[in-house]
Amino acid sequence: MNPQLHAIIPAGGAGTRLWPLSRRSEPKFLLDPLGRGETMLQETFRRLKDVSLTITVVTGADHYEEVCRQLPELTGDGDTVFPGEILVEPSPRDSMAAIGLAAYVIRERYGDRAIVASFAADHVIDDERAFEEAVTQACVGARSGLLTTLGIVPTEPSTAFGYIEPAATELAPNLYPVERFVEKPDRQKAAEYVEDGFLWNAGIFVVEAGTLAGELARQLPAMDTQLTALARRYLNALIEDGVGSAPDPKQWDRLTKIAIDYALAEPLAAAGKVAVVRTSPQMGWSDVGDFEAVRRLRAGADSNLILASPGKEVRLLGLENVAVVDTADALLVLDLSRAQDVKEVVDQLVSDGKQNLL
Amino acid sequence: MNPQLHAIIPAGGAGTRLWPLSRRSEPKFLLDPLGRGETMLQETFRRLKDVSLTITVVTGADHYEEVCRQLPELTGDGDTVFPGEILVEPSPRDSMAAIGLAAYVIRERYGDRAIVASFAADHVIDDERAFEEAVTQACVGARSGLLTTLGIVPTEPSTAFGYIEPAATELAPNLYPVERFVEKPDRQKAAEYVEDGFLWNAGIFVVEAGTLAGELARQLPAMDTQLTALARRYLNALIEDGVGSAPDPKQWDRLTKIAIDYALAEPLAAAGKVAVVRTSPQMGWSDVGDFEAVRRLRAGADSNLILASPGKEVRLLGLENVAVVDTADALLVLDLSRAQDVKEVVDQLVSDGKQNLL
Repeated sequence: MNPQLHAIIPAGGAGTRLWPLSRRSEPKFLLDPLGRGETMLQETFRRLKDVSLTITVVTGADHYEEVCRQLPELTGDGDTVFPGEILVEPSPRDSMAAIGLAAYVIRERYGDRAIVASFAADHVIDDERAFEEAVTQACVGARSGLLTTLGIVPTEPSTAFGYIEPAATELAPNLYPVERFVEKPDRQKAAEYVEDGFLWNAGIFVVEAGTLAGELARQLPAMDTQLTALARRYLNALIEDGVGSAPDPKQWDRLTKIAIDYALAEPLAAAGKVAVVRTSPQMGWSDVGDFEAVRRLRAGADSNLILASPGKEVRLLGLENVAVVDTADALLVLDLSRAQDVKEVVDQLVSDGKQNLL
Repeated sequence: MNPQLHAIIPAGGAGTRLWPLSRRSEPKFLLDPLGRGETMLQETFRRLKDVSLTITVVTGADHYEEVCRQLPELTGDGDTVFPGEILVEPSPRDSMAAIGLAAYVIRERYGDRAIVASFAADHVIDDERAFEEAVTQACVGARSGLLTTLGIVPTEPSTAFGYIEPAATELAPNLYPVERFVEKPDRQKAAEYVEDGFLWNAGIFVVEAGTLAGELARQLPAMDTQLTALARRYLNALIEDGVGSAPDPKQWDRLTKIAIDYALAEPLAAAGKVAVVRTSPQMGWSDVGDFEAVRRLRAGADSNLILASPGKEVRLLGLENVAVVDTADALLVLDLSRAQDVKEVVDQLVSDGKQNLL
């Protein structure tokens, strides 16, 4: 089954919770922290090929070359070709700009009825059939003119995710109107949300290109005008020069810096225009958000997590529930119950003047 | 004050409890695990210069070059010269052979009344004045024809050391006849020994060369004959060729492989011919026997111990009482309460077929 959508992969962000494995120069999506034999970006791309007509990756100038190297099917340098492109954002301006640029390029190419869908470059999914089914249901929502998101059934009262409150009545099997989005909660609130049947917000949005543009024109009209102009300029350059141009940095910097959650998802939810697919627990989604998730997802039931280069012998004595993350210039050893706090270590490095290690 | 003895430094042994810092190729005495700016061998040598007429180092062929490099005063390659020499043992044959070879060379050169004294190459002492006083008292014992050892007042009921039982009556200030030596005890026995005023055996022996040779001739007559021959051959080569020859490996391998504790100290104690100096607690002796000792002895009151190359940034999160020991090809992270068990890790490496890392 092919839901026939146009996939967008915004490939940006540093992922400081996996320091020192992930760095500014080598963010999580360019790496293979789970030891699966391909990078997270490659795995995301492979998974999306089965459900997509085209795939558009949006990445920063710093990572453009490496993204091209990892996805030869998109650049035409591989044995096979998959339709799509790699767009460059001149500087990070949050998800509405990145996803918007890709969506507007797709809309210029394929029209208002093209379904665009954005997927993070660094999440994993266990059961690809369950994923396909969820995406298919999301397309049902998108075809009804709704901004549709995938909701994950919580496995624990996590404080690392925002939550989605679905309405009680189904629109279609496993598809519900969204009452509201709520921010990352504290532990107690998270427990209440789980109790009340809220879903994790995985940041996946599925919507018709025309719906997205129309709603953006209502919420942030300047951004709609600017993205339309940037998309047309990109495609004109592609037609004239055979290669699409990156957005002019000055024009790019005039785009409002805002997450798609605030630009569209929350205001549309308030207007009753958002739906959520209650995905199957079998889907096994994870954002691989910290070393505890890495430990859980790697093969073997070892209580410790050891990440080091193959030439390095790592031994532990008298320690449990510990992660050892060794790289050429930095080594982190942590109690895995503190995995969410690796950001504190990164903050400390900054205040120690060691930004070069980030 | 100069006790005017002839110091012997047997510089051998692997020190597996400091793996992966110390290796077969780079044992503890060639390193500076406490970050003092000189290796343990260099510190030992410097400390002994103040109490010695000559210093003789005995080391394995594998470490000969590095020992020469670290002690240019002994090889004549330094700005200053200190009398003494570096002897090579063709293979490890325990401490009686190594110390015996040096003692017999010293006896040939300086006669029976020369006081020889052996000191480990990888121990530290805080207060060198207290050390000098202890050595001076030991010379009083040696001059009385006794094999004299330095006893350390225990700071805890350690199971890592053998103990010495002193008799009740002093021979001279802080000098006591030895009732007996006892092996490394279990925790309960150790507590009893501490309670009863036993002292730690630091493996330091001070004795006149003639006494040592005479007693060895009584206990192990073949060894006395062999060591006499080896010492004479060494000195003859030195006179004839200007350079002393290492013992012939075949002759060397005929020497009984035995510790000086069993060859001399225990039988002589039973015969009332051993004395012990009760050293001042201020002396601050340590054998730097494990990473817990390294942590205690390094500057700063940090609860964790981090040993890594200067170019490596090491960070800990949520861990206390932990040691991180990072080297180019091996990394050990341990709970410091298990510091005495690093040998288990080394044993595991051997059974994993990774002897190359030892």
